[in-house]
Amino acid sequence: MARKAIVLLSGGMDSSTALAIAAQKGFELYALSFYYGQKNLFELKCAKRLARQFAAKKHLIIHMSMKEIGGSALTSSIPVPKKRDEAEMSMGIPVTYVPARNTIFLSFALAWAETLPSRDIFIGVNYLDSSGYPDCRPEFIASFEKMANLATRIGTEGKERIKVHAPLIEMKKNEIIRKGIQRGVDFSMTSSCYDPLPGGVACGGCDSCVLRLKGFRDAGIIDPIKYSRKYLSKLSRCKQS
Amino acid sequence: MARKAIVLLSGGMDSSTALAIAAQKGFELYALSFYYGQKNLFELKCAKRLARQFAAKKHLIIHMSMKEIGGSALTSSIPVPKKRDEAEMSMGIPVTYVPARNTIFLSFALAWAETLPSRDIFIGVNYLDSSGYPDCRPEFIASFEKMANLATRIGTEGKERIKVHAPLIEMKKNEIIRKGIQRGVDFSMTSSCYDPLPGGVACGGCDSCVLRLKGFRDAGIIDPIKYSRKYLSKLSRCKQS
Repeated sequence: MARKAIVLLSGGMDSSTALAIAAQKGFELYALSFYYGQKNLFELKCAKRLARQFAAKKHLIIHMSMKEIGGSALTSSIPVPKKRDEAEMSMGIPVTYVPARNTIFLSFALAWAETLPSRDIFIGVNYLDSSGYPDCRPEFIASFEKMANLATRIGTEGKERIKVHAPLIEMKKNEIIRKGIQRGVDFSMTSSCYDPLPGGVACGGCDSCVLRLKGFRDAGIIDPIKYSRKYLSKLSRCKQS
Repeated sequence: MARKAIVLLSGGMDSSTALAIAAQKGFELYALSFYYGQKNLFELKCAKRLARQFAAKKHLIIHMSMKEIGGSALTSSIPVPKKRDEAEMSMGIPVTYVPARNTIFLSFALAWAETLPSRDIFIGVNYLDSSGYPDCRPEFIASFEKMANLATRIGTEGKERIKVHAPLIEMKKNEIIRKGIQRGVDFSMTSSCYDPLPGGVACGGCDSCVLRLKGFRDAGIIDPIKYSRKYLSKLSRCKQS
């Protein structure tokens, strides 16, 4: 019988690739998404499609409110910064950081791991090409895993241990794109934008769009999703080589 | 200016005492409660009253669903066990354990700590007189605190560190009751039952009622809340000495 894996699935390119990697490793997939008050609701549609495409045994969408907690451009009226260059992105944690989001998401995954049961949690964080969020770093993932085994029945009573897999953590965006394509991810079904237009059209100017576009450019592949023209220069996309 | 503290407040006797301790230490109080699908909704009424009584600056109730995750008698149709004795309670983790609940609650507290900002989170867990939940142990709290400082802007950018205070962790129930009374907790405004009757009347038979009643008995104080007579023996309460 296949081992069960819980995969945190936002509907973005990283979590989609993490899903494909878990599938290829032979896990039975349990996808976990969140409606937490994010501006990009189109990503949840993508998550649903991806879960179906990869034949996830179950896809759970947890509803919860992070709006009252505030503090992030992704869940409040704080504007999402546009057209920041790499130097700007490397200067500290940006306003798009959602406080403790990955900790909360992983905690729900941990709860589900207890009940399925499953010992394997996949998360598509990557640190090299990220916006500099603290909860995307390898030391955070290792520390969460340690805590998870002290927090739960599995870690306390069982012989096995909870493992948090972060297969993309040391990859650059263009490597993630290549890996995803190799593993069958249809990137037209993914959404990465922090602040999309109606219909899920990507803004092209937020950090996430900038990093995604750069990743596709570096990979020499055309990004198949729709972008608004507002921030997009002719150079943002690249012809397939 | 008083430092801000986030206090996880279920409305039970432990979290109420933790609230009173934080108040006495001079913190400005930010109470945090959850509607997560628990059978005992009366406890949220208690939490509201307690937050008002202790003049909390803000009381946030996060709505989220843990029902789909299941696996606990507190959030599903699994019956709450009644009239277990101490020997039974000491045998492993019971079905009333809600998977990763304290991890999830602390994660939300951490998110709020980032935005307030606050460096101090209070949680009323205690291990000596508990139902044997893994996420009530000192090693879990210490590990969460370590993880929290790697997960957040505060722990990464600031000079200060997140501190998770668990002032009751080594106390027995009767000590908590005495401490609470000293600090002004009105225990008639608290609710501990896992499976209350309408109006919040405690069942008197679940582990939580059994531990609470024993605590009051050991403290030589009459528990001021209402109990159903079904499971209550004449010895369960004790006259004030």
